[in-house]
Amino acid sequence: MITTPVTEIPLVSPGDDVGGLLLNGLSENEIELENGDMIVVAQTIVSKAEGNVVNLESVRPSSEAERFGEELGKDPRKMEMILRETESIVRQAHVLISQTKHGFVCANAGVDSSNVGEGKVTLLPRDPDRSAKEIRDLILEEIGKRVGVIISDSWGRPFRLGAVGFAIGIAGIKPLEDLRGRKDAYGRELKSTSVAPPDALAAVASLDMGEADEKIPAVVIRDPPCELKEGSISDLIRSEEKDLFR
Amino acid sequence: MITTPVTEIPLVSPGDDVGGLLLNGLSENEIELENGDMIVVAQTIVSKAEGNVVNLESVRPSSEAERFGEELGKDPRKMEMILRETESIVRQAHVLISQTKHGFVCANAGVDSSNVGEGKVTLLPRDPDRSAKEIRDLILEEIGKRVGVIISDSWGRPFRLGAVGFAIGIAGIKPLEDLRGRKDAYGRELKSTSVAPPDALAAVASLDMGEADEKIPAVVIRDPPCELKEGSISDLIRSEEKDLFR
Repeated sequence: MITTPVTEIPLVSPGDDVGGLLLNGLSENEIELENGDMIVVAQTIVSKAEGNVVNLESVRPSSEAERFGEELGKDPRKMEMILRETESIVRQAHVLISQTKHGFVCANAGVDSSNVGEGKVTLLPRDPDRSAKEIRDLILEEIGKRVGVIISDSWGRPFRLGAVGFAIGIAGIKPLEDLRGRKDAYGRELKSTSVAPPDALAAVASLDMGEADEKIPAVVIRDPPCELKEGSISDLIRSEEKDLFR
Repeated sequence: MITTPVTEIPLVSPGDDVGGLLLNGLSENEIELENGDMIVVAQTIVSKAEGNVVNLESVRPSSEAERFGEELGKDPRKMEMILRETESIVRQAHVLISQTKHGFVCANAGVDSSNVGEGKVTLLPRDPDRSAKEIRDLILEEIGKRVGVIISDSWGRPFRLGAVGFAIGIAGIKPLEDLRGRKDAYGRELKSTSVAPPDALAAVASLDMGEADEKIPAVVIRDPPCELKEGSISDLIRSEEKDLFR
């Protein structure tokens, strides 16, 4: 497997076509896509292109947001956006851990003030699978290559320090590789019943990207150990009933 | 970054020298290590080589293990080993989530009956950093190359389905890359204060390995986006006080 960072993508503005900018960036980097490549794209540029950017000047915080803002030492207007993006609060301490409307569990419901400029925040894409599919389809249309696309975000985790990349939207990659029935070298059942290729690829791509998403907002993964398949990110989300930590 | 699976490593037995087997495997695969490479090695072969294999026939389960075994539908002798490896129980439902003596939080305290043969289980290495260091030092001694080594295991996660690789022991790689003070493309603070390169590399390597560790028990990562540095896996563990999910 070979990962290649994609640079030369300009700062993205609402209304921009991420797929088009990505294809330009690939040309500038002299990367020729091949069938079966996976492309990991940072959430920030997708959110910005789709207009999921909020100017905090325009936000009027509720009294709840004022209270949370005070408790957590956060701008109440950003807090307001976090609460609006929150389906339910999973934990509240020095940071708010939310379940988003998509079902993701992450800090601040994915509302992020980095990589977007003073006084603004990005929200997660409304329908990240659709965002991934649009990029995938544009690449097929424009250059005739069948690739997979993963939209990634960088999150903290229980039990472990340090953020890593997670997949938040996918097209052309199976969310879970089911291992039931496969055997180990001794003919016995494997320990895990499934693995999550999109998260593993998002993790390594985020490492290539660094955290200043705008400099390397995408990574091409050649010869990934997974085939082009269909699936939805929702299949990667552990349901509340099966989750021991909610 | 280029990841290359290492095959041609024979089934490992207690007393084997993992570093030596790894060097043989690299030769068989015609992989010439370079300074700065990172090598991810599956926990199973390290545990087996170090003799951390328990023959369940020799285990006499306590009444507590009998009770847990009944509740969780598990062999009480395996349950006994899980309890012995458990420092504290974090969650108990259809599976036991333990904090191990190393401080890791994972299912079954890392006790694993796959990839070891009928009637046996592997335990996590006693001191996984030392295990990593021994492999790293042997490589330097034998072929004069300075590499980093990550021992990996594959775990389930809160909130998400599907197992991914995690680092459980490291040598020659920093556990956390501190981002404080670095700026985004707009000159603002980054969202995350640190990232966890060992976990990201373990995640992608585990994908290359698959779950039948014995076939591909190691992966070489060339041009990783992190330098050779020193550090301990314990710095990657979130302390109980800072953990909202314990």
